Parts: sequence; C-alpha cells; structure tokens
Amino acid sequence: MGKIPGTKAKKIIDVIKRNSYDSTYVYPLVVADGHDCMIKDVDGNEFLDFTSNIGSSPLGYRHPDILEVRAKYGEIGMFKIAGQDFYCEEHAQLSKTLLSVLPANFKLFLCNSGTEAVENSIKLAYRKMGPHPAISCIDAFHGRTLGALTFTYSKSEQKQNFPEFAVKRIKFCTTENDPEINAAEKLLKENKIAFIITELIQGEGGYNVASKQFIRTLRKLANKYSVPLILDEVQTGLGHTGKWWAFEHFGVKPDIMSAAKALQVGASVYDKKFDPRKRGVLSSTWGGGDRINMAIATRIIKVIKRDKLLENVTKMGQTLKKGLTEISGKHGITNVRGLGLMIGIEFDLAKKRDKKMNELFKRNLLVLPAGKKSIRLIPPLVITKEQIEQGLTIMNEVFSRN
Amino acid sequence: MGKIPGTKAKKIIDVIKRNSYDSTYVYPLVVADGHDCMIKDVDGNEFLDFTSNIGSSPLGYRHPDILEVRAKYGEIGMFKIAGQDFYCEEHAQLSKTLLSVLPANFKLFLCNSGTEAVENSIKLAYRKMGPHPAISCIDAFHGRTLGALTFTYSKSEQKQNFPEFAVKRIKFCTTENDPEINAAEKLLKENKIAFIITELIQGEGGYNVASKQFIRTLRKLANKYSVPLILDEVQTGLGHTGKWWAFEHFGVKPDIMSAAKALQVGASVYDKKFDPRKRGVLSSTWGGGDRINMAIATRIIKVIKRDKLLENVTKMGQTLKKGLTEISGKHGITNVRGLGLMIGIEFDLAKKRDKKMNELFKRNLLVLPAGKKSIRLIPPLVITKEQIEQGLTIMNEVFSRN
Repeated sequence: MGKIPGTKAKKIIDVIKRNSYDSTYVYPLVVADGHDCMIKDVDGNEFLDFTSNIGSSPLGYRHPDILEVRAKYGEIGMFKIAGQDFYCEEHAQLSKTLLSVLPANFKLFLCNSGTEAVENSIKLAYRKMGPHPAISCIDAFHGRTLGALTFTYSKSEQKQNFPEFAVKRIKFCTTENDPEINAAEKLLKENKIAFIITELIQGEGGYNVASKQFIRTLRKLANKYSVPLILDEVQTGLGHTGKWWAFEHFGVKPDIMSAAKALQVGASVYDKKFDPRKRGVLSSTWGGGDRINMAIATRIIKVIKRDKLLENVTKMGQTLKKGLTEISGKHGITNVRGLGLMIGIEFDLAKKRDKKMNELFKRNLLVLPAGKKSIRLIPPLVITKEQIEQGLTIMNEVFSRN
Repeated sequence: MGKIPGTKAKKIIDVIKRNSYDSTYVYPLVVADGHDCMIKDVDGNEFLDFTSNIGSSPLGYRHPDILEVRAKYGEIGMFKIAGQDFYCEEHAQLSKTLLSVLPANFKLFLCNSGTEAVENSIKLAYRKMGPHPAISCIDAFHGRTLGALTFTYSKSEQKQNFPEFAVKRIKFCTTENDPEINAAEKLLKENKIAFIITELIQGEGGYNVASKQFIRTLRKLANKYSVPLILDEVQTGLGHTGKWWAFEHFGVKPDIMSAAKALQVGASVYDKKFDPRKRGVLSSTWGGGDRINMAIATRIIKVIKRDKLLENVTKMGQTLKKGLTEISGKHGITNVRGLGLMIGIEFDLAKKRDKKMNELFKRNLLVLPAGKKSIRLIPPLVITKEQIEQGLTIMNEVFSRN
C-alpha cells in the first residue's frame, strides 16, 4: 500500500478544494474503482468498505448484474430523460418492481434524490391537509433543501440563518415506556397538524433505533387525529436493516414514505388516498434521475430477491453486532446499537471517535461518523463473513489501543 | 410511421399511470432511442425534436462524444458516489471546465438537479444575509422543492396548499422603460431583503425575455443595497441563448447563479465572497449526480467549445426566429420572441395553442408548452439548417390551417 493520500489523490483534492465549496469530506480518499466490498483509490490503495456510500452502493462494486445493465445502456442514445414530458419504459419497470416490495394500494412518484423524496412526501401531505405546522423529531435528518431541512434538527451548522416552516419537535424515543412517548398527543390536540414525519433509525443523528412503542404510538395518534404519518426510509430502505423497509420491524405501515440511496433514485411512495389526482402538483424534469439509474434500481431489487440478500444482512448483522458488543463498555465505547447491517458505535468523547476513525482509515477500513460522537457502519448488503471478521479484527485492535 | 401511441407505448403508459402519480406528461410518447435531433419511440415512430428535454440534451442523441464517455464508464465499478465523504476525479475535472466559462473569482457547489441548484443558491444568500424576505418575479419558475417553490409563481396547481417563506414579488419587465422597472427599490428601502432572484428568460412562464433595462436595474439596486443578485440559468445556461450564459446578453454578472439541465448535474456557482467557508453548511450524498453525469458534463462543455456550437445556436436561432416572425400576427399568433434557440410563440387562446401542439405532434414535430398560451422551442444546440427548415415547414403548414 502506498501513502494516503498519494500523489494523484493530493492533486485532485487540491483542485476540488480550490474550485468548489469544501463540503463534508471525511477522508482524503479519491475513489477510482472497486470490487465487491473493496474500494480502490486513484493511487492504487485498497480499502475495506463499511460505508457503501451511506447505503448507496448496496451491491458493492463491479457487481456483474450492474455491469450488465450499464453495458446495455452504453449503446443507447437517449439518456437524461424521465418523469416529465415523455414516458420511458424504465419508469414503468421500476414502478412495478418497487411496488412488489411495498404495501398493497401504494403508488409512487420518482425524483432525483433523498431530499427531493422528502420534499415530495411532505408536499403530498400538505396538499391534503393544508400548510399547517408539522411534527418531527429532535436529532432528525430529512435532507437539506429548505422544506426537508425544516424537519432536520441534527447539527447547528446545517441550519444557521436559514428560514423554516412551522414545526413542532418531539423527542425521538429509543427506550420503551419513555415518559415522552405521548408528547405528540398534546400537540395534535391543541393544533391543526399537517403531518408527522420521522425516521425509524436516525441516520445522521447517530444510528439511534426508535423504540417499538414510540413508532406504534405515533401510528396510533396519526390514525386517531387523521394526520398522515410520513416515514423517512432514505437510509434504512431497501434491505440494510434485514427487511425491505425498517418499518416492517415495527409492525406499522406509513401513509407516505420517502426512499433513495440504495434505490439509486429518489421516490415518494404513498397510500393511494394521498394521490393529488390533478396533474402538475408534483413534477420533475429529471424525475427518476436518468434511464440508467432507474434500470439499475430495478435490477438491484431483483438481485436482492434472487440472492436472498435480506437473509445475508440479518446473519452478517448479527455477527457484526455480536463482535462489537463484546468490546462495548470498554475503551470508551458507551453503546453499540443497530438493526441488520446498520450499526452505531458510540464513544464517550467526540475527540476519541475522531481519533479512532482516523486509525481505522490508516488500517484501510472505511467507516462513517454519525451524531456527535458515534461511528456508523453500513457495509454493502453483499458483504461476506470473511469481510465482517476482517473488519471486526481491525476494529478490535484499534479500539483496544489507547 | 405507425399509430401513435402504438401497441408497445400504450402498454407502458398504462403501467406508469396505474402505478405512478400522473405528472405533467405532454405527449403519449415513450422514448426508446434517438440520433442527432431525432427521437425514436418504442414502436419505431420518429420525431423531429425541438425540445431537447427542456434543454437537457444539448448535443442531441447518440452524439459520438457522449457515447465514448459512457462506454468508458460502462466498465468502472464505482458509480453512485460524489460530493460527500469521498472525492472523485470527475468532480475536479468538471470544476475546472465549468469555471473556464464562468466569471473569474467564482466557485461552485455541485448537486443533483435544477431545484437543488436553486435551493443551494438561496442557502448561500440566506447564510450571509439572514432569513429575511427575498424578492422574486411574477410568472417566475425556480423549481418545486419548497424553498425554490416559494419563489416560483407560475401556475396555481404548483403551489396550492404548500407553505412558503417570506417573499415580495415584482413584475418581470420585458419592455424598456416599463413603469414597474424600479419596483424593487421601494422594497429594498423599506425591508431587510435576503436576495433578489430572477430568470433572464422566464422558461415555464412562457419564454418571456427580460428587458436589458430591467436586469441592469436589478443589478444596480442589488449593488446599492448590498443584496446578492441570484440569476437562475437552469434552462438558459450552457449555450441555448447563443452565449454560455444568458446574463452575457445583458452586460451584468450575477453574485450567485444556478445551473442544471444542459449541464447534466445541478450547480450553484457563486462569487467567492459568498463561500460559507465552514464545512457542512451545504452537502449532498449524491452531489453532482454520479460520476458518469459529471464526466458527460465536462465533455459537453468541451464539445461546445471545439465545435463552435454557440455560433451555430446564434445562426440557427436567427433562421428559426425569422421564419416564425413571418407568420406572427397571423393565424392567432400574437407574439414571437426569444434569444438564440429559445423561442416562444404566443397564441391568442390556450385552446388554440393546445390544438396546434397536437397537430404538430401528428406531423412528428415535438415542441413544448410554456406559460398560459405559448409554445416553446428549444432544439438541441447541434441542430442543422435542414432540420430548422423542416421544422419551419411543418409549423407553417400547421399554423396556417384553421
């Protein structure tokens, strides 16, 4: 392995930093290519990937099914078209395939990204309910366009000086019988509320898993007060928790849901009763990204079914969590939590988390930060037992050192 | 030519309508492939394309340069990654190439779509100025996520029941010495204003071209009151007016600008003094769409330079406008206007516009509606004299019939 960043990477990073706003880059890593769960950088360094681009590469890299789809589209001349003005077959195919893993009686609207999926989900709710205040959770992350950002409440730099719509925030309860579990009821009783929106596992917030009772209480209250419940599954959706959707772990159904990342495109999916019926309420020039992304999305769902990847996620998730639970309580690790292959490791101090992430990177293991002092692991759905064990060995060595 | 929609198209449209929200589809046309300015549908029907997917296909279809880039990426395993967590070379290359056609001292932030480009542009302004009301134009279209939608004021169904941020609307002046040309000044004097945002040619609004005096007045007032001027070039940018950016026709520069469509990805570009400097203010998991889109964007800019396509746009635009001006004033056509290859044809009645669009479609010429009773033409930048003349012949015949 060479130095990181190597000569080529340094040059590229320098150009990006000079010309672009320096966003939230975690590592001085310039990706070039990859295979299964390994990422290769432009200088030839290889990394074991426990991030899958925050879930956006569910089948890892160079997956033969994905390469096959892309080869097919390499020869087609019409590319950036979808969702408005003209129809295309990829839209029809993805709609059928996606609905096959959704509750009956659902419809969908495709868009470009996770934040657009949330925007369209809340638009469906506002359209029916009117522009009233809505309920969301503390530490939530729903995206960064200003509608979605209203309901995001994670890091202050994400919101400073930006306007927001009317919002009432409640605690995201992670333990059963939390005294705050009924907090939404007072708000629903005293206000006209447009919708309730929440994640099942707070992603950016730190991989906090909601308690079953919390989600069921929200579902019950939404029914009681006839307010739509929007579940944001942009990060949890399409298999990373071991089920198609995280809501299946909680025994509830959403009225409206947003998906993206693993899906390659953005989608608002919803109970038909929220369909605006009239044309022009929602629209997007590039709805569904482009034809290749929709075709790959369809193939990903088929591969998850064919290769029984949800079972792999459950098994690999158990192995990973078990291995990490053994070191929980030691070395400044205060908590290990998660569902399937979405696992959060919390440290006592942010500084410690940052130091440990850096040490993992030097050992060529990629993980991501989450919340104020947690690490999040979200490896590709195709990860093998050997790769899980390799990752565990590195984490054990790094975490147990001072 | 077969029936339109043919058997295959009918089946596909049926699936989309059953499973998806029925958005703003103009024609029962299911695209399959294309070549230069021709679109082929799934049943083998061919159409002369005067839409370029609202500008998103600037080089038409099956352009050898685009096919070359896509063939290269057909074999790379890492795909959906850009803009956050890890760097990639395509980001660096696009940043250099895009800045080569922008004012000196500009930086950029890449995102997924036009509406995200507008959201990030207004976020840059709010960040510096605070969450104050902003000034935008009547009949403007800036996108459909709720931040951008606040400043959109085109069709009522696009906004009904949605909340909006504080906004002051002024008239979009298309004639010099319009009495409303100084309307912004009163607002700037009496309020703390976060920014002024406008298009140069209102796209969705009807291809209304701003008067030089209007844009120069906004520029002057923005300077005088130290408020950023945001120009939305999502539809006008990257060549369709015969210059790289429409603002070049007006002798002004923006402080912040949004681009997308022809660029394949979304971009907020801005004078360096609006850089938030601190990390995390803007971010996007898929910023820049994916690596292929960024690579194609870079190539498109190079092809426009190499093949002198701006000159082609100016010449072809003149021919097209001249041909249409000859029938202006007759057959219910009240106005023909535009810049370069963005041309609006206004009818006396919406019903007439719709009827004529339908007749053009039956003659295999694709155009788009805009505003309440206009047709917009925005053919690919590579269109030839023969294709312009072919389109003019069809329009002349269709428009002169009762």
